[in-house]
Amino acid sequence: MSAVPHATNAEPGAQFLAEIREQPAALAGLLEQEDEIARIAAVARARGPAIVRMVGHGSSDNAASYGVYALGLLASWPAMRDSITLTVHYGTDFDMSGSTAIALSQSGRTPDVIEYVKRARKRGAFTIAITNDADSDLAREAEAVISLAAGAEHSVAATKTYLTQLGALALLAGHAAGQGTRIANELRVVAALLDELIPPLVPRIATVALPFAYVGRMFLIGRGVEFATARELALKLLETCRIAAQPLTATDLAHGPVAAVDSLFPVWTIASDDAALPAVLEAAGRVRAAGGTLIASGDAAARVEGADYVLETPPPPSPLLAPLLSVVPGQLFAWALARAKGLDPDHPRGLSKVTLAR
Amino acid sequence: MSAVPHATNAEPGAQFLAEIREQPAALAGLLEQEDEIARIAAVARARGPAIVRMVGHGSSDNAASYGVYALGLLASWPAMRDSITLTVHYGTDFDMSGSTAIALSQSGRTPDVIEYVKRARKRGAFTIAITNDADSDLAREAEAVISLAAGAEHSVAATKTYLTQLGALALLAGHAAGQGTRIANELRVVAALLDELIPPLVPRIATVALPFAYVGRMFLIGRGVEFATARELALKLLETCRIAAQPLTATDLAHGPVAAVDSLFPVWTIASDDAALPAVLEAAGRVRAAGGTLIASGDAAARVEGADYVLETPPPPSPLLAPLLSVVPGQLFAWALARAKGLDPDHPRGLSKVTLAR
Repeated sequence: MSAVPHATNAEPGAQFLAEIREQPAALAGLLEQEDEIARIAAVARARGPAIVRMVGHGSSDNAASYGVYALGLLASWPAMRDSITLTVHYGTDFDMSGSTAIALSQSGRTPDVIEYVKRARKRGAFTIAITNDADSDLAREAEAVISLAAGAEHSVAATKTYLTQLGALALLAGHAAGQGTRIANELRVVAALLDELIPPLVPRIATVALPFAYVGRMFLIGRGVEFATARELALKLLETCRIAAQPLTATDLAHGPVAAVDSLFPVWTIASDDAALPAVLEAAGRVRAAGGTLIASGDAAARVEGADYVLETPPPPSPLLAPLLSVVPGQLFAWALARAKGLDPDHPRGLSKVTLAR
Repeated sequence: MSAVPHATNAEPGAQFLAEIREQPAALAGLLEQEDEIARIAAVARARGPAIVRMVGHGSSDNAASYGVYALGLLASWPAMRDSITLTVHYGTDFDMSGSTAIALSQSGRTPDVIEYVKRARKRGAFTIAITNDADSDLAREAEAVISLAAGAEHSVAATKTYLTQLGALALLAGHAAGQGTRIANELRVVAALLDELIPPLVPRIATVALPFAYVGRMFLIGRGVEFATARELALKLLETCRIAAQPLTATDLAHGPVAAVDSLFPVWTIASDDAALPAVLEAAGRVRAAGGTLIASGDAAARVEGADYVLETPPPPSPLLAPLLSVVPGQLFAWALARAKGLDPDHPRGLSKVTLAR
């Protein structure tokens, strides 16, 4: 893919699709950063992170949801999506020594994320930027930089930078836990699986997406590592298809929102084969009982009884890496549905690639 | 209010409205627990909480969003909404000594929250239950119990237990910071303000709610302490009005979701006068530019330019307590809109008062 912006008279959605297809290559680019990621993990470990504080907006915040599990499961580090407001807007003056702060921003230009890193560093945190622009302001403010090396991303809807953020967090956690080589090898397997998964899905996805052309709202259900996928796919559908798509954990669905489900309110479940799967299957049962249309993706999609649409993904080398595969059918669904609705997913109304909102 | 369930032939929504009205009295009930809350805060302080881990579902999880700010701003304690899945489903074996774990459940019967407390306690955390049933399983499993003392709540949609959860977290944080007496006095002021706010809003709210009878989706925007309010009002609208209502931080709106806003997609902004207000006003500007109908509530509602509906609430004694006031117009809006749509907010389809989903 060329580094210059694509011609604006290209077919609507061409950039979005091209970048979805580039994800295996982007993951390979990230893996070339492994030595630096290992070095950063060693520094974080040496400083003994009592807490890992992650910040980001949009897709980057969704990746942080994954980071909670990658860092918790591999490195036993307590990790949280920190409140930017507390530090940047309310100006609290926490002691952050013993914290590792990870700032995620594809562009490296998100104002409050940059300001957060400045303040966290001043208060003693070890600051790491994870960004696709290693020359950005964010990269300059942080002590350490993980370059996503995903190549320029032109579509407003992030895909390959999201996937490489997941990979970067898994690699960082793996190296922190002394399992970096295993995770790197498994990510190479994931890249190969993506290479097989994507091409046959592209022509098939339109027939799944088309019946949803008049849908205005949707829930996306995941739990554990797949809650990040639910959040990320909801965001893709919001920004490219203008669907009011809302992510929920499997259990939260039952605590109120299920009351809104009926036959015109589809629910997408991300079902991967790990210890959280029973909660997801129970949630799917509630959706069926309410008469909702059910879409199932993930490597355990076939176990979602009564699903109207099944988009199975290959089993990952280990359950933690399932979200790098299960996100892809949803990305392609968003691309196909936007086209079916006559929208241009490359240029959603009211958005630009770099968001400078405070 | 009697402790026996109301007759099922009562007017639809009568319980929901009665319990909204009971909130000042419920807050007074909570304040009678102050000595015990002060004692628990002292224990937590003595054990030196490196992290406060909060867990809950639905309204209780929304209250935990508020707890992040109450504990951070008053006590400078790093607080997070912890992943239940990591501990309960994935069985990670973190050392939690030095953690304080706060479990929120109105009924005290939420299965995975109870299981989380068992495990957190075994791993060394100081465990606190915040519940409206001091005889519940959750209360028995935790080392310390804060009783909400809100009186029986019959409506499926929580109101007075949510408000008292906010009060309990503010009081706990206040006592942890040596400012408990100030916070208690301020909560008494809030109770008096609620007593003035609610009665005149009840007859007025229907005229605001009626134009939304055919609305299927909505965003609710808050930031900082008011993000909890955005989450809680979204849940009320989902469960009582079957609106796909989604909470977003002011900044996240710009990172994608604003693309979905048009003249049929209303946005509710919670505008309170604190350091996060500029971000909320900027988000409101983006909504206006996209042609969305704008509702503004909170004590700074009048500062939201071009708002189509303004539901101002009185200024709180201190900004941290604004969410105990700003939630009320939205609760009443949900009650009035459910009635306008012919729904029974006391008995939403598919829900029961105690949720036993795993």
